[in-house]
Amino acid sequence: MKELFIIKIGGNVIDVMDKLSVFLKKFSVINSPKILIHGGGKLATDLSTKLGIEAKLVDGKRITDAATLQIITMVYSGINKSIVAKLQALGANSIGICGADLNMIPAKKRAVGAIDYGFVGDVLMEKIPVTHWTDLLEKNICPVVAPITADSSGQLLNTNADTIASSVAQALSKTYKVTLIYCFEKNGVLQNPDDEQSVIPLIQPEIYSTFKSQGVISKGMIPKLDNSFEAMKNGVSKVIIGNALQIDKLITSKEGTHLSLA
Amino acid sequence: MKELFIIKIGGNVIDVMDKLSVFLKKFSVINSPKILIHGGGKLATDLSTKLGIEAKLVDGKRITDAATLQIITMVYSGINKSIVAKLQALGANSIGICGADLNMIPAKKRAVGAIDYGFVGDVLMEKIPVTHWTDLLEKNICPVVAPITADSSGQLLNTNADTIASSVAQALSKTYKVTLIYCFEKNGVLQNPDDEQSVIPLIQPEIYSTFKSQGVISKGMIPKLDNSFEAMKNGVSKVIIGNALQIDKLITSKEGTHLSLA
Repeated sequence: MKELFIIKIGGNVIDVMDKLSVFLKKFSVINSPKILIHGGGKLATDLSTKLGIEAKLVDGKRITDAATLQIITMVYSGINKSIVAKLQALGANSIGICGADLNMIPAKKRAVGAIDYGFVGDVLMEKIPVTHWTDLLEKNICPVVAPITADSSGQLLNTNADTIASSVAQALSKTYKVTLIYCFEKNGVLQNPDDEQSVIPLIQPEIYSTFKSQGVISKGMIPKLDNSFEAMKNGVSKVIIGNALQIDKLITSKEGTHLSLA
Repeated sequence: MKELFIIKIGGNVIDVMDKLSVFLKKFSVINSPKILIHGGGKLATDLSTKLGIEAKLVDGKRITDAATLQIITMVYSGINKSIVAKLQALGANSIGICGADLNMIPAKKRAVGAIDYGFVGDVLMEKIPVTHWTDLLEKNICPVVAPITADSSGQLLNTNADTIASSVAQALSKTYKVTLIYCFEKNGVLQNPDDEQSVIPLIQPEIYSTFKSQGVISKGMIPKLDNSFEAMKNGVSKVIIGNALQIDKLITSKEGTHLSLA
């Protein structure tokens, strides 16, 4: 099977133009089929603040109300087009999409339970139209994905970019040997959050359980890792977590944190 | 040759959700290859005002500075994704693009002459990659186009939506029998701007010259008409100007203003 890299970029790498440029330059020369999924960094929060729209929190969970959805849609879609323009200039033919385009990431609005999350979407992984993705990849086109989806009624929905990355990775794992990479400003999963040199090079399920019970792994990292192990159980070959500015090394060597089932 | 409808929607139809929904419903059932190009209506201006970014004018011409470009990119791209989500829900498979995506509308920054327009793009019509457009259209996919382009250095550029429509129409006129439709909130080109019933049903070059010299045609309409006659000289079959809410009738009957070379 052909190798496919699905790379999710997040954290402050998105906000700082110089850093984003370094990443995109290295990303553009990856000589395999590739998909880029990005977040919105601090830009959506900044714009909301400027417009006087306060973040809505219920029980510590962020709620996407209509005003926030509108901001997020604009900011993420705008970043999406900036990234595509830069990739084109670097010679990497790319197309900027969200989940609504060609319905490439079908989703549904999260059901209201103890919390009403508002306009938040959950990916319907089994409905991802694999051929739309392969059609682009086989033409050497790189999809650049903004984390917005829509439900079948045409309602746009704020959707977690990590989840999009792992859902698309799983859906495409029957067609490609998929490497899923989560990259951001840290060098990997750290044993000590204050020490960038404390990268844990390899995490297997057993060690992961131990780390979790010992509280070694930071809370923010746990959904990402749970997600990743789940993705590997469903066919994704490799998951790597590391520094976006070293994307070239994450792919070719043992930089960052590598996850393994065995 | 197969018929292709290239429809540019502008004016306040974009701003008012009810009107946009009526338009999209009628647009979605057009049973021929079709392309939708939209503007940003008042939304970009509204957001700029809220953020305290003043419109920059030089000699009465609007200038796109960096802050304005950022607003425009976000607003137009956001509208673009909303339209795509609604079309999907209506069963019209669509993909939202700007000129940078697959480099589908190559452009260059307008040269600084008497006025520096800032980040404004002029379409490089002869470089439009026709096969990227036909690939989508032949798969029954409707491209939905936001009026943003990029130059070869990856700089995003604000670009006139009317010009994009007529450039794409000309580029595709060797492959399709192209009908170019400009629609907005008016019923057509009006003989008396205050009388919606004064639609001029047919405009030919000679009458157009007479109307222009008599000042019958409003100044805002002249670039659109100049552009349209130019497009017809370059192979576009028909140009129709009329009310977006009657898009069904513009296509099938003699509503609106029809332009003709002879």
